[in-house]
Amino acid sequence: MISPGRPVLGIDVGGTTFEVILLDGAGRVTAAVEDATPRGVPAAEAVKTVATAARAVAVAAGVEPRHLRGVGMAVPGRVDSARGLLRFAPNLPGWLDVPVAALAAEVLETPVTLEHDVRMAAFGESRRGAGAGAGSFVCVTVGTGIGAAVVLDGRLYRGVTDAAGEIGHVPVVADGEPCGCGRRGCLETVASGRAVAARARGLATRGEAATLLACVNGRVEDITAREVFAAAAAGDPACARVVAAAVAALGAALTVLVNVLNPEAIAVGGGVAAAGAALLDPLRAAVRASAWTAAAEAVRIVPAALGTQAGAIGAALFVAEALGGC
Amino acid sequence: MISPGRPVLGIDVGGTTFEVILLDGAGRVTAAVEDATPRGVPAAEAVKTVATAARAVAVAAGVEPRHLRGVGMAVPGRVDSARGLLRFAPNLPGWLDVPVAALAAEVLETPVTLEHDVRMAAFGESRRGAGAGAGSFVCVTVGTGIGAAVVLDGRLYRGVTDAAGEIGHVPVVADGEPCGCGRRGCLETVASGRAVAARARGLATRGEAATLLACVNGRVEDITAREVFAAAAAGDPACARVVAAAVAALGAALTVLVNVLNPEAIAVGGGVAAAGAALLDPLRAAVRASAWTAAAEAVRIVPAALGTQAGAIGAALFVAEALGGC
Repeated sequence: MISPGRPVLGIDVGGTTFEVILLDGAGRVTAAVEDATPRGVPAAEAVKTVATAARAVAVAAGVEPRHLRGVGMAVPGRVDSARGLLRFAPNLPGWLDVPVAALAAEVLETPVTLEHDVRMAAFGESRRGAGAGAGSFVCVTVGTGIGAAVVLDGRLYRGVTDAAGEIGHVPVVADGEPCGCGRRGCLETVASGRAVAARARGLATRGEAATLLACVNGRVEDITAREVFAAAAAGDPACARVVAAAVAALGAALTVLVNVLNPEAIAVGGGVAAAGAALLDPLRAAVRASAWTAAAEAVRIVPAALGTQAGAIGAALFVAEALGGC
Repeated sequence: MISPGRPVLGIDVGGTTFEVILLDGAGRVTAAVEDATPRGVPAAEAVKTVATAARAVAVAAGVEPRHLRGVGMAVPGRVDSARGLLRFAPNLPGWLDVPVAALAAEVLETPVTLEHDVRMAAFGESRRGAGAGAGSFVCVTVGTGIGAAVVLDGRLYRGVTDAAGEIGHVPVVADGEPCGCGRRGCLETVASGRAVAARARGLATRGEAATLLACVNGRVEDITAREVFAAAAAGDPACARVVAAAVAALGAALTVLVNVLNPEAIAVGGGVAAAGAALLDPLRAAVRASAWTAAAEAVRIVPAALGTQAGAIGAALFVAEALGGC
């Protein structure tokens, strides 16, 4: 995939932590670091702190930063890739119109390519993870929110205004719960980690979901989607209903993706995907039952494989390919 | 788009009629013929009849068939493009595993490329019709059935088993009407021309839909989707309900297409699309209300522009581009 050559850095800045990886000239991950994303400081300062940590990764591996072939950087939010700007990031308060690429390039003495984190994680999975070898591939993230990114016929597909893959905001419940996007009843209001936890907290507060309450020692505020899936598996009927609604809505969304895109593989990642077979098995069954047969039979539904490094690996590989490395 | 050179023939074989067009070396349509698809004869004979008619179009335009650059041929059904085979065509009884490309090439003395008609119509619309200039484009056909074909970043996208765009079989009603695909409640069972007509015939038989019955002089069997839309527009409340259900289901499907693909344009064609603004206006409103804002604002929802010639023009242009004409 990657031609022999100079190393490439990949950086993925999340709301809580950031990841740095170094790809050597043969495309192998030879160094990796994870650390806390600086908070409570100006965005420009935080970017420089991250870039300095990335620089240290290269130096520790014996690579002079200015000898890097390139740097790929993934951020969570609206990105203007052409200008290297992060427009807005809901999980990075205060990061508004930040020239992330230019700030990082100054520290790293190398041009930096800025991209959206979900896209880069999908790209990483398509090249080295759950989608390796799949010509057309969808990477669905079910975490606090729900998003997807698509690699079609081997190429990252963005859509005409960089908005392709917004499955989290497909309407699934008429006049449903309000969604952060301003509409109602979006997939995220039923199946995101935030929604699953909120619905279960509501039940627990009303005295239902006894098993769930026991899981968190009666502390309703400690309930996350993980505990809801665990309590459902342990037989809590209220939690089972919440999980069933989430899985049914996700299954319907995956069915549409399969019918429209006819992909070879769909990877499911993100915090809620940690539920494993409890999530994936019913999703596979839903697609088998409801999607167009020729497309349902062709698709593998698999867990994402690269974990927290997916975005950093994807950003590095994206830059390497863009520079003619494949 | 098309480099100067020798002419290209485009042929579109439908269940009822076939269309032939001749593109000159500059990509202009210089001749066109429509005729009835032969029925009640063996498929091989029918193909040769169509090819002979196409040959005559070229000859009449002063083009020796063997001087053609190529021939593109569109057929309705499952196609094995690599082998030039039509596997199966629901609307062409008896056409099973027919080597259409080879049979036509014999008559035309030129290699023939065989493709699916909905894909070719979409390709034609993307190059010369409603999608001209749109980088990413979806062409939705609402006729007897419902299908879609997608041109993404300028390229025809097929999916991994040639099944991309199967929106007609997205489930929209839980435990709904049986669908020809073997499942229940697919979009086609609510919004296709066949479904709209069948639902209205049921109402008319039960004595509802008086306006509709008047439109067809009391002959229930003459009811088609066209009359149902007309009666709804004239105030028939039963027909208005049938149309509203169809439009709502189509609007939901378009909303998903917009969120997943973020296209620049969606063209709506097919028999039901002849309803014009009565169909397109509520579809635009549904997408505006329900799709992700950045994607909803970017998309134009427009009528298909090439009419019955779309498939033939698309097939000719597809071949011309494949031969290096663009």
